Parts: sequence; structure tokens; C-alpha cells
Amino acid sequence: MVNKIFTIAAFIGVPLSIIGSLLHWSSILMFVIYCLTIISLSSFMGRATESLAIVAGPRIGGLLNATFGNAVELIIAIFALREGLTEVVLASLTGSVLGNLLLVAGLSFFIGGLKYKRQQFNVYDARHNSGLLIFAVIVAFVIPEVFTMNMNAEKTLSLSIGIAIILIVLYLAALFFKLVTHRGVYQVEKNGEHGHAHEETPEWSVKKSITILAIATLAVAYVSENLVHTFEVVAESFGWSELFIGIIIVAIVGNAAEHASAVVMAYKNKMDIAVEIAIGSTLQIAMFVAPLLVLVSLLFPSGMSLVFTLPELISMVTAVLLMVSISNDGETNWFEGATLLAAYAIMGIGFYLL
Amino acid sequence: MVNKIFTIAAFIGVPLSIIGSLLHWSSILMFVIYCLTIISLSSFMGRATESLAIVAGPRIGGLLNATFGNAVELIIAIFALREGLTEVVLASLTGSVLGNLLLVAGLSFFIGGLKYKRQQFNVYDARHNSGLLIFAVIVAFVIPEVFTMNMNAEKTLSLSIGIAIILIVLYLAALFFKLVTHRGVYQVEKNGEHGHAHEETPEWSVKKSITILAIATLAVAYVSENLVHTFEVVAESFGWSELFIGIIIVAIVGNAAEHASAVVMAYKNKMDIAVEIAIGSTLQIAMFVAPLLVLVSLLFPSGMSLVFTLPELISMVTAVLLMVSISNDGETNWFEGATLLAAYAIMGIGFYLL
Amino acid sequence: MVNKIFTIAAFIGVPLSIIGSLLHWSSILMFVIYCLTIISLSSFMGRATESLAIVAGPRIGGLLNATFGNAVELIIAIFALREGLTEVVLASLTGSVLGNLLLVAGLSFFIGGLKYKRQQFNVYDARHNSGLLIFAVIVAFVIPEVFTMNMNAEKTLSLSIGIAIILIVLYLAALFFKLVTHRGVYQVEKNGEHGHAHEETPEWSVKKSITILAIATLAVAYVSENLVHTFEVVAESFGWSELFIGIIIVAIVGNAAEHASAVVMAYKNKMDIAVEIAIGSTLQIAMFVAPLLVLVSLLFPSGMSLVFTLPELISMVTAVLLMVSISNDGETNWFEGATLLAAYAIMGIGFYLL
Repeated sequence: MVNKIFTIAAFIGVPLSIIGSLLHWSSILMFVIYCLTIISLSSFMGRATESLAIVAGPRIGGLLNATFGNAVELIIAIFALREGLTEVVLASLTGSVLGNLLLVAGLSFFIGGLKYKRQQFNVYDARHNSGLLIFAVIVAFVIPEVFTMNMNAEKTLSLSIGIAIILIVLYLAALFFKLVTHRGVYQVEKNGEHGHAHEETPEWSVKKSITILAIATLAVAYVSENLVHTFEVVAESFGWSELFIGIIIVAIVGNAAEHASAVVMAYKNKMDIAVEIAIGSTLQIAMFVAPLLVLVSLLFPSGMSLVFTLPELISMVTAVLLMVSISNDGETNWFEGATLLAAYAIMGIGFYLL
Repeated sequence: MVNKIFTIAAFIGVPLSIIGSLLHWSSILMFVIYCLTIISLSSFMGRATESLAIVAGPRIGGLLNATFGNAVELIIAIFALREGLTEVVLASLTGSVLGNLLLVAGLSFFIGGLKYKRQQFNVYDARHNSGLLIFAVIVAFVIPEVFTMNMNAEKTLSLSIGIAIILIVLYLAALFFKLVTHRGVYQVEKNGEHGHAHEETPEWSVKKSITILAIATLAVAYVSENLVHTFEVVAESFGWSELFIGIIIVAIVGNAAEHASAVVMAYKNKMDIAVEIAIGSTLQIAMFVAPLLVLVSLLFPSGMSLVFTLPELISMVTAVLLMVSISNDGETNWFEGATLLAAYAIMGIGFYLL
Repeated sequence: MVNKIFTIAAFIGVPLSIIGSLLHWSSILMFVIYCLTIISLSSFMGRATESLAIVAGPRIGGLLNATFGNAVELIIAIFALREGLTEVVLASLTGSVLGNLLLVAGLSFFIGGLKYKRQQFNVYDARHNSGLLIFAVIVAFVIPEVFTMNMNAEKTLSLSIGIAIILIVLYLAALFFKLVTHRGVYQVEKNGEHGHAHEETPEWSVKKSITILAIATLAVAYVSENLVHTFEVVAESFGWSELFIGIIIVAIVGNAAEHASAVVMAYKNKMDIAVEIAIGSTLQIAMFVAPLLVLVSLLFPSGMSLVFTLPELISMVTAVLLMVSISNDGETNWFEGATLLAAYAIMGIGFYLL
């Protein structure tokens, strides 16, 4: 049912996006059309990824989910960078980190917890992720903030480039660690985990999944480019700041697909995948998408430094500390979900009033 | 013996408080009388609560202990708010958080640890509490500090109100979680825990306990109102700041009863109750008393925002990180108590010199 | 082989240091000679300590290693203090903390992890150390930073002295706890741990070890005094700041011996000793050397307050959070080592650009 709605939305949204932009419909109308179209396209990407994930197994499946959820965001961000909207990009990175860590994980834990009293996930993965969250957000994002307070723009950018390269190298090392040198080393034995994977049948074939992924990605790219051009008018009309658009709108639009699939996984008590989507996606944003955008920004006139505003940075740091503390025992329940959602609500009010 | 002294102190203190205030005795003398009277009344409230707690079992017992220890503080704070002393109130909240987390827990762990080499408490409760400490202090208190740096007073108050409501809702959700949906789910099996509860006989009957609680609470309210009026003169005479009075004097006077009962529990190796008093009380201050005072302050001319001074905030944040790290394994010893006390001493010196 | 090189370096370095300083060779040449001489002397101290450590067992062995690694640093720092170079001293303390926590531990975990898939160490010690790291760096170093922002110099120094005394007292209490009241209480059983200790034979006798330690320490003191006098010229010539010299050069020169022995221990899978050197040494710097230098500085005209620059402080705080998160489970692998090294690299670039 939900899938049908998304299918119809996509098949209406893409042509409408093209027609509307050619006929110069009002920016606010187009903003809404673009957002809905991206969300419905994301859903296609999500379903295609899901089909691939079932074939590939839970670990790679979660990785695939995270990657293509973030592909949408990467595309939007590159178009925003080309327009010189570095603040919007940094804000949307913040929004993705907060959205994944607090909203996606919070909803997953909460809704999963309404059905199951205690839900468990691999505690080794949780600790591995905790270390990376602290490395990426608390070390790699905080250091440039503090060190560049009295630095000129050139040195600030140099520091950001250095950190970006280190982040990407460590991200690749983490993949190498997980998939090659320590594959299966920290496996927690679980009843029927492998059985589950075999029971399910993918919705689409591998070939069809990849085709849909490719087409949907191209369509998202086209719509994203147009979306970015509506930001200024929308911001003015609603009295929103670029920051708010980046943190709330772009982050929610860009991550809608992941939100949905993580919650579904939690509801099926597949917490390993739900956590992999929420936290894995956060790590990919912080350790791969963000530094990649710093490097990509060098191709454009205005380079983007990895220097967030103080509210953005502190929100991410406190969100990480909260998540590390909550995920540390490899167990969740509805109240832990509620705590994450409450933290998201507090930050949401804060960014709205800012 | 100690109880007798407190009884005599209360029976002398209350009439002296009334006579002295009518005859306009010197403010400094009255300040001392008021403080001692409140401490002795707190002791009555503590004994009444203890009697109720024995009947109610360890979990609810700890909760009762925390509630009525904080009742005194809530009363003092409301009178201070009516006088527009928002800084004193914020300082006394800080003082309570630090006092409970570092002084009460520190003394409990230290003195309990002198008798027992290793003391254990429920590690699930410890982790649950860690999550809440981080949520309340590191998210809910830090966010307004950072976000309101460039905000006007009106928006600052709006943010504080929003956060206050979220804190109270989550606090109630936490009670619902602990007492309803997950009651006993995380119980660690212990030898003779239930046996102990039955062995003890309450000092007073339930009826007598409630009567004494009610009368003592009223008396505390009366004395607190007068106490608040002496702050200005006392501060001037001793060269103390309002901050120091709030953090040290009000916090110690307001929490004396809890201090005593937590240490006694630790000495009896009932660490679950000692920890529940120290950390549970901190959480009640941060998630219930503080936000309630924000809402109550709206009835008075000067609304209180949840924006602490930087030294207050950083002290609480570092105290939380220390406590989370120390309590995380569900075990204590004398050295962990000493570490908490050393942290309290450092902050005490800091606030004194401020 | 390596030992021979160090022996030759020491026997050439010490006379060269004396001759060069008498003949007023260029400061930059002498700076290099002094640094290499200190490193080679450190290696002697390291070997002597190692010999003593084999006799004394792993716990005391690690302690001895840490102590004499830091002896070199303490000596350099005292000469720098006498010259009024308080900023260099604070920077070198920062450099030691970062060097031990990130570089030494990072290299140990990384290189040990290349040989062994999973390496384990005593999880109780890890948690004990985590508590102390948070106490020392996050409480005792952060509090003066925040509290003294509006304080005059006199009060700032008073606060530092108070904190210094508390740190030293708690450090001694920690030794008392580890070696007296709770010796062996938290021992994790391991196969052949004791067997290993007996197999090894010390390189030198206890008497020879102590003699070499004494002579090398005196030589280090002499060279260090001269080294300090070259800082100004070297800083000017290379366009480095005092900060950079302190954090990078002094820290690496002063800790070279420890670096080497921790990595060797990790390679032999003796992770308890490797961790004891890295983290134990950090704690000794933070809880003993730093406060001792504050007290020693009172003998000189310019007293040293325990107030780091913000980049120094934030680097140490984030390094501690990272290490606490990584060491918390009592296990390491090559990737955790890589993460620590990546954090060190980020900070290194930051301090270089500062």
C-alpha cells in the first residue's frame, strides 16, 4: 500500500518537477514538489537496496542501506556547494548526524521497544561504533572549531583538508577492518540469524535493483539541483534561516528512506540492521560524506572548511555522548528510544528559535 | 543519640525561628538558626521517609528518600524565586547536583568502602541512570547555554520552557518505565535482598510517618521563607557571593538529610539504596525540580531561564562524566569515593574563589 | 643492534654536548645534539628500568617504566620553569599526555594488533584508569580553565595550588589503593602470566641498573639545562612557536624511551604492561608531574598556573574521551590503534598550523 503511494508519487513527481521548472511555477510550490519527489525516489532506492541487502546478508545490507540513503544527501550537497551555500551544507551534515543518531535510532528503539521488552544487538559492533563516533565528531569536528578561532581562512582550510584526508583514510581502514581482517571475529551467536536471511526473498532481482538504483539516483540528482535553487525564496517566505532549512528540511528529505527502513527493521526485531542503518549512516556522513564534500568544495570558488557553528557542533557532540552511553550495553528498550527522541526535540526547538 | 540531638534541635529551633524573626534579631544569628532548624527538620523528614521506605521496599524507598530530600529544596527555591533571586536558585540547583553526585555518593562509596572491599549495585540501574544523567545535564542543560548566546530574553525563556516540559515528560516516562513496563525486568539476583527488607521494622507507623512528614514540611516552608530574606545581609557580611550561598549553603542545608541516609545505607552495604538516593536525587533535581521551577517562575515577575553560569554548567557536566565513568561497572570501592570527593573539593575551592 | 647504536650515540653525545656548549657552537646544531643525546640516555634509563622491572613483576615494572620515562621530562620542565618558560612547560605537559595516550598507545595497539587479532588486558585496571583520566584531565584541568576566565592572577594561582595538592594526594591514594588495600583484588586470571615473568632474565643486575639510572639521570639533567637555552633561537629560525616546540619536540624527546618499550611489550602481547606504560604514564604526568611543577614553580619568580591554552585543553579532553571509549572493554586490535594515531595526526596538524 505504502509502496504504491510512493510509486504513484514518483511517477507524478518527476514529470511535474520537469514541467514546473520549465513553466517557472512558484518557488514554494516547486520546493514542495521537489521534496516529495525526492522522498518518493528515495523509497525506490530504499527498496532496491533492500533487495540487494537480502542477497548480500545483514552486514553488507546495512552498509548498502546507509550508502544509498546518503547518496541522495551527497548529491544535494554537491549542488548546494556549487552555489556557494557552504553554510547550508554544513547544516545539512549536522542535520543528518542528528537525524540519524537521535531521530532514526530513537524511533527504531521506541517503536521496536513497544513490541519487544528488551532488544539486543551486537555489543562489539556497538563499541566499535562508539569509538568511531567519538573519533569523528568529538575529535575530528571539535579540533578545527577550537584551533581555528584565531586562524586565517587559508590555514583553516588547510587544517580542514588535512582532517578530511585522515577521516577518509580511517573510514576506508574501518571498512577493511570490518570486511577483511576482522570479518566475523566479533560475531555474537544468535538463534536463527542466518536462517532468517535465507527465508526472505528479495522483492526485485539483482539486475532490476541495480537498474532502478541507477535511474532513481539520476532523477534525484536532477531534482536536487532544482531544489537548491528554491532555498533562498523559501527561506525568505517562511522567515526561516538557511541553517534551519539545512538542518531540518534537507536532512529529513535526504534521510526519509533510511528512517523508514530502520524503523521497519526494529519492528521486525532485527536490531543489528536497524543500528547499522542509524549509526552506520551517521559514521558515513561524518567520516566519508563530510570530508568528501570538503575536498569536492576545492573544485568550486568557495572552499568549505570543516568548521561548524557552535550550536551545530555542541548538538552533535552531546548527541554522540548520549548515543554512546545508551548503546554501550548492546540493549535497547522503548525508554531509551524516548530519551533519544526527547534530545532531538530539544535540539529541534533550539534550532527553530535560533 | 544523634536522633535525640536533632529532636531537641527541632523543638528549640522552630520556636526560636518564630521568636527571633518577630523580635528582629540580627540577620546572621537568624541565618544560623534557620539553617540548623531546617537540617533538624530534614532529619525528621528523613526518618519518616525511612519508615515509609521500609514498608514500601528498596526501589520505592529510594524514590521516597529522594523526593522528600528534594522537597526541602523545592520549597526554599520557590521562596527565592518569589524574591526574584533566580541566580541563587540556579546556583542551589547546581549545588544539589554536585552535592548529590560528588559529596553524597563520594562519602557513601568512601565510607562503605572502608568496611567492604568491593561493593556492588545493580549495573542495569547504573546504566539507565547514566543515560538519564547525560540526557539531563549534558543535553538539556548544555543546549540552552550554547543556543542562547545570541538570543534575546524572550526566545531564551521560550527555549527554557520547551526544554522544561520535555524534561518533566521524560521524567514521568522514566517512572512509568521503572515502575510499570519494566518493573523487575533488570533485577540482578542477590542473596537475601528480600529477606533484609522483611527483617527490618519501621521506626514509626505509616500514619505517624505521614503526619510527621506533613508537619515538618510545613515548618520547613515557614523557616525557608525567612531564610531567604537573610541571604543579602549574610552575603554582604561574609563577603560571599549569592552564587556561593546558593551552591554551598543552600545545597548543604537542603540535602543534609539525604547525605546522612545515603552514607548509613552504604555502611550497611545496601548500595542499591545509597546509589538510588545519590543519583536518583540528582536526576530528580535535574529532570523534575529544575524544570518545575522554570514553569513556576512564570507566575512571578522575573521568569527563570535554564541558563546556568559557565562554571556551574561545566562543573555539572564534568561531575556527570566522572560519575558515569565510575558507576558504569556496578561496583564501588573506597578509592572511587575518594575520587568523587576530590572532584567536589576542587569545585568547592573554585566556587569559593569565584 | 639498536642498543649498540644508542650506546655509541650516548658516548659520543655527552662529550659533544659539553664541548659544543663550551665552544659556543651554533644553537641549532647544539639543539639537535642535545635532543639525540637525551634520547640515547633515555634508552639507557629504559633498559635499566626494564631490568629492574623484570625483577619487580609486571605491575611495579610498569610503574617504574612510567616513572623514569617521566623523570626526563620533569628535569627538562624544571629547567624551563627556572627560565620562566611556563608556556613551554604547559605545552610539554600537553604533549606528553597526547603523546602517551595517542601516539604510544596507538603505536602499541596498532603494531601489537598486526601480529595478534585480539589483544586483551585487565579490564578492571582499564576502568580504574578511565576514572582517573576523567578526574585528572576533565575535572582537574578543565575546572581552572573555566573558573579563572574572570579571575585575577593571584586567585588563579591559588586555585592551581589547591588543585595541585588535591591531585598529588589522590595520586598517592591511588598508589596506596593499587599496591596496598586492593593489591591483586581485581586480578584477571591468565594463562602463564607468572610463568613468563620467571622465564625472562634481566639484562643488568639490580645494582648495575640503579647505577646506570643515576648516572644517566644526572647526564640528562645537564643536557636538559643546555637544551632549554636553545629554544628561543630554534623557534625563531624555524618559524615555530614555543607551543609547538613544547608539544612536539620536548614531548617526543622526553618520551622516546617509553614509546619504544611500550611498543615492544605490545609486540610480545604483554598488553597489561604496554597499557600501564601508556596510560599509567599519562596519569603520572597529569596527577603527579603537572601538579608538582605548579608547586615547584612557586620557588621561581613566575608561578605556573594550571591553565592550559584552549587548544591544549580541548586536545587532552578529546584524547581522554577517545581513550576511555576505546580501552573500556579491555581489548584492542590494530584498528583501535589506527584510530588513536589518526587522532594524534589531526592534533599534530592543528598544533603545527596554530
